[in-house]
Formats: sequence, structure tokens, C-alpha cells
Amino acid sequence: MDLLDIKDPKFLKELSIKELEALSADIRSFLIEKLSVTGGHIGPNLGVVELTIALHKCFDSPKDKFLWDVGHQSYVHKILTGRAGQFDTLRQYKGLCGFPKMVESEHDVWETGHSSTSLSAAMGMVIARDLKKEDSHIIPVIGDGALTGGMALEALNHIGHEQKNMIVILNDNEMSIAPNVGALHNVLGRLRTAGKYHWVKDELEMLLKKVPAVGGKLASTAERLKDSLKYLFVSGMFFEEMGFTYLGPIDGHNYEELFENLRYAKKTEGPVLLHVITKKGKGYDPAESDTVGTWHGTGPYKIETGDFVKPVNPPPAWSKLVSETVRKLARKDERIVAITPAMPVGSKLEGFASEFPDRMFDVGIAEQHAATVAAGLATQKMKPFLAIYSTFLQRAYDQVLHDICRQKLNVFIGIDRAGLVGADGETHQGVFDIAFMRHLPNMVLMMPKDENEGQHMVNTALTYEDGPIAMRFPRGNGIGVPMDENLKQIPIGSWEVLKEGKDAAILTFGTTIPMAMEAAVLLEKQGYSIKVVNARFIKPLDEKMMSELLGSNMPILTIEEAVLQGGFGSAVLEYAHEQGFHHAEIDRIGIPDEFIEHGSVNELLKEIGMTTDEVVKRLVMLAGKKQKRA
Amino acid sequence: MDLLDIKDPKFLKELSIKELEALSADIRSFLIEKLSVTGGHIGPNLGVVELTIALHKCFDSPKDKFLWDVGHQSYVHKILTGRAGQFDTLRQYKGLCGFPKMVESEHDVWETGHSSTSLSAAMGMVIARDLKKEDSHIIPVIGDGALTGGMALEALNHIGHEQKNMIVILNDNEMSIAPNVGALHNVLGRLRTAGKYHWVKDELEMLLKKVPAVGGKLASTAERLKDSLKYLFVSGMFFEEMGFTYLGPIDGHNYEELFENLRYAKKTEGPVLLHVITKKGKGYDPAESDTVGTWHGTGPYKIETGDFVKPVNPPPAWSKLVSETVRKLARKDERIVAITPAMPVGSKLEGFASEFPDRMFDVGIAEQHAATVAAGLATQKMKPFLAIYSTFLQRAYDQVLHDICRQKLNVFIGIDRAGLVGADGETHQGVFDIAFMRHLPNMVLMMPKDENEGQHMVNTALTYEDGPIAMRFPRGNGIGVPMDENLKQIPIGSWEVLKEGKDAAILTFGTTIPMAMEAAVLLEKQGYSIKVVNARFIKPLDEKMMSELLGSNMPILTIEEAVLQGGFGSAVLEYAHEQGFHHAEIDRIGIPDEFIEHGSVNELLKEIGMTTDEVVKRLVMLAGKKQKRA
Repeated sequence: MDLLDIKDPKFLKELSIKELEALSADIRSFLIEKLSVTGGHIGPNLGVVELTIALHKCFDSPKDKFLWDVGHQSYVHKILTGRAGQFDTLRQYKGLCGFPKMVESEHDVWETGHSSTSLSAAMGMVIARDLKKEDSHIIPVIGDGALTGGMALEALNHIGHEQKNMIVILNDNEMSIAPNVGALHNVLGRLRTAGKYHWVKDELEMLLKKVPAVGGKLASTAERLKDSLKYLFVSGMFFEEMGFTYLGPIDGHNYEELFENLRYAKKTEGPVLLHVITKKGKGYDPAESDTVGTWHGTGPYKIETGDFVKPVNPPPAWSKLVSETVRKLARKDERIVAITPAMPVGSKLEGFASEFPDRMFDVGIAEQHAATVAAGLATQKMKPFLAIYSTFLQRAYDQVLHDICRQKLNVFIGIDRAGLVGADGETHQGVFDIAFMRHLPNMVLMMPKDENEGQHMVNTALTYEDGPIAMRFPRGNGIGVPMDENLKQIPIGSWEVLKEGKDAAILTFGTTIPMAMEAAVLLEKQGYSIKVVNARFIKPLDEKMMSELLGSNMPILTIEEAVLQGGFGSAVLEYAHEQGFHHAEIDRIGIPDEFIEHGSVNELLKEIGMTTDEVVKRLVMLAGKKQKRA
Repeated sequence: MDLLDIKDPKFLKELSIKELEALSADIRSFLIEKLSVTGGHIGPNLGVVELTIALHKCFDSPKDKFLWDVGHQSYVHKILTGRAGQFDTLRQYKGLCGFPKMVESEHDVWETGHSSTSLSAAMGMVIARDLKKEDSHIIPVIGDGALTGGMALEALNHIGHEQKNMIVILNDNEMSIAPNVGALHNVLGRLRTAGKYHWVKDELEMLLKKVPAVGGKLASTAERLKDSLKYLFVSGMFFEEMGFTYLGPIDGHNYEELFENLRYAKKTEGPVLLHVITKKGKGYDPAESDTVGTWHGTGPYKIETGDFVKPVNPPPAWSKLVSETVRKLARKDERIVAITPAMPVGSKLEGFASEFPDRMFDVGIAEQHAATVAAGLATQKMKPFLAIYSTFLQRAYDQVLHDICRQKLNVFIGIDRAGLVGADGETHQGVFDIAFMRHLPNMVLMMPKDENEGQHMVNTALTYEDGPIAMRFPRGNGIGVPMDENLKQIPIGSWEVLKEGKDAAILTFGTTIPMAMEAAVLLEKQGYSIKVVNARFIKPLDEKMMSELLGSNMPILTIEEAVLQGGFGSAVLEYAHEQGFHHAEIDRIGIPDEFIEHGSVNELLKEIGMTTDEVVKRLVMLAGKKQKRA
């Protein structure tokens, strides 16, 4: 059928299984074709075609509510709820969001992006439903990877205790982004091979009757055997222990099994966990045969070959530059250990892992645990490198504060994807880290201007012995500068003058340095002399340079690809006023007090007014004031 | 024996069980007597006397490492490691810390305060031990309450997967602070009554042999029965599922059982979980018979009667004022639901719970889940009240950002214990919330000057319909002002002039208002005219009043009982410079960039220079500058 004709999911009610299978094939072809152009989360969505169709057929959205954990697997749901026509704009500026979005559709009832939130949100909705005496079904769909996140486990504990009606779909594809780790994963593995509970229940009851009657001490044992029947009967004793009715495991690509179990779940009182086995990338060979997570989310690709359409010979990716520098240092320093919360591929730690398998720990989607494991290592004089995305470090704020900074432990936090990230949008922008890190006592926070400075900073971090130190670096590739052979240490809190000038100074770091240089050069032509400083230490500031600048009465413009509230510019303001320079002309450019949606980084920067033009305009105002005073 | 003679725990090796029992009695008497004067965590420590002694007898600290989760149960450990003589100064300024502290003793290897960190830290230490090929035992001691915290569950998952040697002591007293909730608690309850695994194992094996041989379909079932034996044998199938060897449950007040099991655990390969049942308050009747958590942590008390030594007729406690106002509003607004992460007593929600049992949810120690449950409720047009301490809200930073603020949901966060908290010290100071909340888009953040304004703010929050709103309020009691009969709404972003003046203005809020008023009155006598503003909205600022102040060129002093970096004073600086008032004289008083230890709030304020004298000094400098300019 033409997917563009779909307005809402009601049409599914009339379709036979044969028709649904045809629809599934159409949706797969559509996704493979559209995403080959736009890129996107192809693997997760090919895996949930039947599951999503079955949910929409067996339940009535939006009265019944689906909560897509993480949310990157909601494309099929978007197609079934009338959004097929927007897939050409997927993850593009002002286009279709790659995650559920309430403004797009009444069928999107919960917005996601970060992992493991769906069970808690569903619990809130269930409480509301019961208090309002409504009768809808609340159905979180959570992956086996997301289930290892602490808040999902907190939620399981609460849901199991409350015993309210909720249908949890465990979408088990044996991977989160990379292959899963953790004991829970092993539990799921045993369940997958254990066969089906409700088919063997009767047989087991027959068997039990044959257990001989026994006396004496054995009697209580036999009693206990009967009490323990549940654990024999039920494959999912882990979930049963937590208070759930466990159903499954079932084949998530088989409509009959899906319907039978969803209908059973619908009638069951109390919380149900339906364990559905799916295959990531199902129906597209290159994605289906992926074992490491390459096809989790991709850029454009050639459909026939599965080759990615990539720029030719790009400069090194930041993640790789950082992890390979750590690897190089680890050869000389046995204390270096790498920790990643489920991002070995994203953080490009494959090389480190293969060279130092005993010194690399993927702890699963568990950012809090990751941070405190690093703290524990540091108490034993090891040098942990915590590789984590800026947006996910938000999950470990308290651990960074309470465990790492408070105990002043030598942990190196590599903050990946800092700044705007583009297509992943508002849930993934790495724009808060400066504001939530800068006020942490003992923390050193830095950002390099290019990949060469980046490698020296990694070296600086891993040889620093006076507490926690973090380096933020952007998504994407370096700018292609020559790389020094030998690694240096950069003095903590030292800035670098990139260009001298006397009418005004720009203080900035990382990705916004080119914008600053460009503006300075443009203004040079207009007769202004602009100083540009690589303010590579966000904390501590270069107090010597700050004092000189303030003492010279030079107006200052700060630029940061991060939120303005409490950010680097505020640090500059704080310092100026603390030191009594109350008359300093200081202006700040950065991200305003709002969430920034998806789009290319350049489009987003333009939208929020972070452009060379704006820098020029602000500088002219500042420098003009100085000339007036002079 | 005289506990003051203890220098280190080596002496325990020589003692018989009888002698250990005498020592236990001595320690209990000591704790009951000392804490009756200083206050402290009496219940948790009386519960772990035998457990702590047994650990120190069976293992060799500090080579073997004990990690006390939360840490308020470490008093017995402190006595056994030579610190009995310091108990007169417990939790007092420059005195013995109420939590483990590395600077106090080499036997304190991990500092705690927040819950659920010990397993992750232990994992870090285990990795370090194995890489260094050392042979120490790493022994986290975690309560059943702390086990519900998400990061503890993340850690169990990782520890179970890695299968490295670690001995986890589950100190199960059937309470965390208040009685425990959650499915995991129910699991533990079943284990407690299930009897002992290793005593019935042989009997069960005999029983199994009697299961008749069967053919056909039943054959595989019988096979499965044998495979499933583990679940019959082992009471702790929950933990066995997670990859642990489960031992217990055992009586935590019985030395023989403790020794037998600790020795067995010592020899076991892979992670072990030893389930120890203890009784909170053991040996002191008032504490032992406590069922709600009153004796978890207390102030001074009379030993004979168990009566608390409290001030006579104090003004209402802040927690109670807030929760009772919420309760009053809940009578008229059915949408109001209260959520607490394990703090129903601390947050004084007993009244609300008894009047609205269906609308009150204690979710256990699970701050992340609590915040997102609130978000889920708000999507369904309910009005959730999240009652949470400032320091524990740190755990939910990402959920407040990603789930509540990003979706602009109407959640009211009551931030209890904001500002310095005193005796609990550096892990509990509520001084970061402004810095980590102020940069969140859509957030409204306020703090009342007294309990009357507090009740109006609660009303304001619960009738506000434009996104998240938070009110911070201090630990302890109100100041005793008359309470209005009818609740009002305070316009969002409106400040209040408490005292007019023209030489300088103080902007402050909450607990620091009396200091500001006192300084203003003192300066009045010296001929200065000081304006005092109740800046009750920290975000958004009162932009009208800010513009007037800046326009009048009046110097400004901000005061906040919170960290200066990125705090309220920074917001004032940001606004002034954004609006082009680059010449504004703005000075800030607040908490410097360091962790603040325990002591009375007044002692701590004095130490960090937040005193009326300092306010006067700063104002004279500011006002003096203005006079010079004029």
C-alpha cells in the first residue's frame, strides 16, 4: 500500500495477517530507501516493524499510550500515525524529529532521547489513570539495553510493588547500541533459550504429582518444593521475583505470537512484562548481520552495497583522536583504565579494548555506576578515563560531585559530543556541561582548539595528579591540523593568545575559535584591532591573563557553544567583579535559555544568532564604547 | 573494657565469643550515652555492632577494605579503629564526622553520605586490585534500602557479569530510613522467612533422586526441573540470577553465624552476597521498638525515657509547613499527588499520607524514578508535588532537565534542606541547587523569606500552569511569623522591597534576609541608606526592579546561602551586562568554591565569611564608591 495514505492507525484493525505481512515489507522498503538518503536509526526501526504494527492493531492509540524508551525506534510508529510524508526531512532543520515529539502527533505521549525513562513515566501515567478512574492501557516499550539503566531498575522495583496494571514490552534484541553486557543480559539469555512457560505449565503440574510423599525433615523440603513451583514454572523468575507476570519469550516478528500474547497481557491484572525477541536490522542484510552496532544509527548509505556515503579522507574524528591518545599513553602507564557506559563504538574505544582487554570496562547503560567505578579506581591510585557523552554525563552529575570531586580523585572525564550535536536534537545537545560542571569544587574543565591541542590535553589530563580533570570535545571530526610527534603538558589554567589586538578581546575556546578569528580579521579591515584568546581552560580561568585584560580596560566578548546561564561568560563576569573591575565592558555570546531542536549545527547556530556577523556586530559596539571613552 | 584504649582492631583476633559479647554490650552503652548528648544516627549503629566487630575480626583492615554505604552506620567501625575518644565532638564543628572520612583514619577507604554508591566504588577497587595482582578483600556493606537506588542496581548488574571476587554484605534491617517499599523489599521478605539454603541442600538432592523418570514431552520438562534445581536450592534466586553466590539469611547479632558465613564467603570465588538480618536500634528499647524511623537519626535525648530534648514550642518546621499546605490544597484540587524518595518522615508527609493514601507515593531511595514519575503524572494533567532534599535532587538532575523541563511539565519540586544543613556535613549541604537549576530552560525557582510567604509560594506553585516550578526552603524551623488565613498567589518573578534606601541595595532571599536587614539597620546608624530586597524569585529575576536598580546606578550586593559559581549573584551580573549596564557595581556574597564540612550553620557561615560584619564591610565599600562617584 502507499504509506503516504495512512492518516491514523485505525485501518490496521481490518487487516489480515497476510495483509499485515505485506504492510511490514512495504514499511521496511520505505525505511531502507528513505534512510539511505537522510541517515537515521535504521537498525532499531527495522527490528520493531511487526511489534509496532501489532501494538497499534491490538490497542487504541492515543487512548492507549505507547512510551518508546530512548525513542529512536519510533519511526514505524510515526509512519502508522500519518507521518510517512515527512520522512524526507527526518532529523533535519524544522523537519521530522528522530524521536517522539508531542507537537508532531497526539500519538506521541512521552518524549524521549535519553534511555531508561519510559517505565517511570508510565508509572506516573498509570497512577493518573487510576486516580481518574480511566481505563486506558499504558505500554512502555523498553530495550534490553535500556533496562540496565538504574532508573529503569528503580522503576521495576516500584511498579512490581504497586501492582497496578501496566504492560511492559521488553524489546530484546540482544544489543543496546553495542552488544549488551551485564548480569541482566545473561538472565535474558537464559530466558531466550528456556522455552515457553505457558506451554509446559500443565506438564509440570503432572510431573509434580509424581513427587513421592515424604516424611520427617524432608517434608518441609517437599512443601518448599511446592511453594517454589513458581520458579520452576516460570522462565522469567527474575521478573516474577520483582512482582511482574512474565510472558514470553516470543518471536517479535511473528504476528500470531504477538497477538496472542498482547491479548493475554491486556486481560491480566497487575503489571505484565512481555518479553519479545526481535532482530535489529531485520530485513536489510547489511544491518541484520551487524554484530557491533555500526547500523544502530547511520548517515546516508548505498542501498545495494550497504556502503556508507562518507567524505573522502576526513580529518580524524574527535572520539578516535582522544581514545587513541589514551591508548598510546596506556602503553607507558599501567594505571590507565578506560570505562564506557555502553558506548565502546561511539567513543571509538575498539582499539583500546583490543590492546588492553583487561583494562577496558563497558558497564552497560549505567552512567552513575560508570562515574563511581572510576572514583573507586582512583582511590587505588589508578588513572581512570571515563569516556562519556556530554548529554549522558548529566545522569552522573551527583556521582561526579559527591564521589569524584568531593574526594578530589584523579579521574579524567572525556566529555564527548560537547556543544551542539545536530540531527539528534534537543535531548542530545551537549550544551549544559559547562553550567553543571563549573561550580563543582576541585574540577578542572578544558576544551582544545584543535586535535593537536586535544592530544596534548589528553596527556595533560592523564598526567595530572591533583584531582578530577575533564576535557570537552565536539561531535565530528577535527579540523585537519598537523599533529605533533611528542605529547606535551599544558599548564593548568593557561590560556593562549591567538592574535594580538588592543580595541577589544574575544575569549573563546573549541569550536567557536574559527568564528572569532574570522570576525577579528574582518574587523581588522575596518580598522579595529581585536585580540583573540584561546581560553582553553574554562575552570580555572587564566587569572593572570584575565587581570591583564581587565587592567588594560579592554572590552571583552566571550563566545561559547553552551548555555549562557552560569557558563564560561559568567565565570568571566564573576572574576571581573570579584577583583573589583566593576567597570569592565563584558558581553557574552552563547546558547540562550531554551532547548535547541534538531538541524545541522550551522543552521542551529544561525538560528540562535551565533554567527560571525553577530560577533562582528557585538565587537563594534564594545570597541566603539572603548573608543568613545578614550 | 575501656573503649578509649582501642588503638586499632587487631585486639579482636584474640577475643572469644563471650568476650566479644561483652565488648558489644560496652559499645552499645557507649553509643547510647554519647549520642544522648550529641545526637546522631543511633538506630543504624546499634544494629551493626556485632556485624562490624565480626568484619574486623574475620578480615584485616585496612588491607581488606570495608565500604560503608551511606556511611551513617560507621560509628562502631570508628570506635574499633581508635576514635572512641572523639565521640564527644561527633558531628560538631571540627569534630568527628558522622560519616567515613579518609583524613580521620586509614581504615576509612571510601567516603559516603549519599546512598547506593558503595557497590560501584567497590567494583572500581576490585578492578584495581586484580590489575595490580593484590589479594585484599573488598567488602561493601549496603542496607536493604540503599539497594533500591538505581546505581546500586546498575552495580549489581555489572558485578554479577564480571564475576570478580567481592563480598557484598546486605545489611537487612527491613527499613531504610523509613520502612522500605518496593518489590525488592518483598523479595527480601520472602528470603527472610525461607530458611537456610546450605542446610537443606543435601535433603533436596535426595528428594530429586525420587522424581520418576518420564518420557515424551515430559522428558524435557524433567530435564528442566534438574536445570532449575538451583532455584529450588537457593533461597536467594534473585541474587543468584544476577550472578552472585547468595549466602543467608543469617542472624546479624549471632557471632557464630557471622563467623561461619564470613569465612565461607572469604573462600568463595566470584561475587558473594551475604544476607545479614539486623535489628535497627538493637539493645536500646526506645530505638528498637521504633517502626517509622524516628530513631534513625536524632538530636539529644534522655536515656531513661527516650524523650527527645527539644526546644519548647518551636515555630513550625519548614518540611511540615510545606507538606501541610500541600495537604490543605489537595482537599480542593484532586489533581495533587505527593511523591517522596524514601523520606515520608523527613519530609513530614505523614499527614498527607493518612488523609490521601491513594495520592501519596513513597518510591524508595530512587530519586531519578521519583522525578520522572512526577513528569509522567504531569503529562496526564495531574499536579505532582515532588518532595526532595536539595542534596538528593542532585541525583535527579538529568530527569529534571530531560523529562520535566524539556517537556515543560507542571511539576512542583519542593526542595527541602536547601542551604547549609549543619551536622550532616559536606555530603548533605544543599548549596548546589541554584547553580544546577538556574540554567534549566522553563524552570521557575523561588525561596520564601518566612513561613507565611512559604505557604503562599506553595499555593503559587500548585496553581501555576506554565511548566516546572521549584521552591527551596531550609532545614529546621520557621522564624515564628503570624500566618495568613487565606492563601495568595505571588506573581511569578516579583521581588519585594523590604526596606527602602538609596546608597546601595542588597538583593537576597530566604535565610540570609535577617543578616541583610541587620546590616542595613547598623549602617543606618552610620549614615548610610541601604535598600533591602527580598529577591524571592531566583529565576526569573524581577526584571522591572533590576532595571530600575541598574538605572539608578545604585551599587548592588547579592547574598545567597549557596555556591557563588553560577548562582543567583551571577544571574544578577548576567542580567546587568546583557542589558548594557556594564558599569554596575555588583558584589556577591555566598559559598566559595569548596566543600563545606560539618558544624552548626552559624559556625560554618562564620568560617566562610557570611556574617553581618562582612555584609556591612562590603556595603561600605560599595556605597563608598558610589559616594565618591557622586
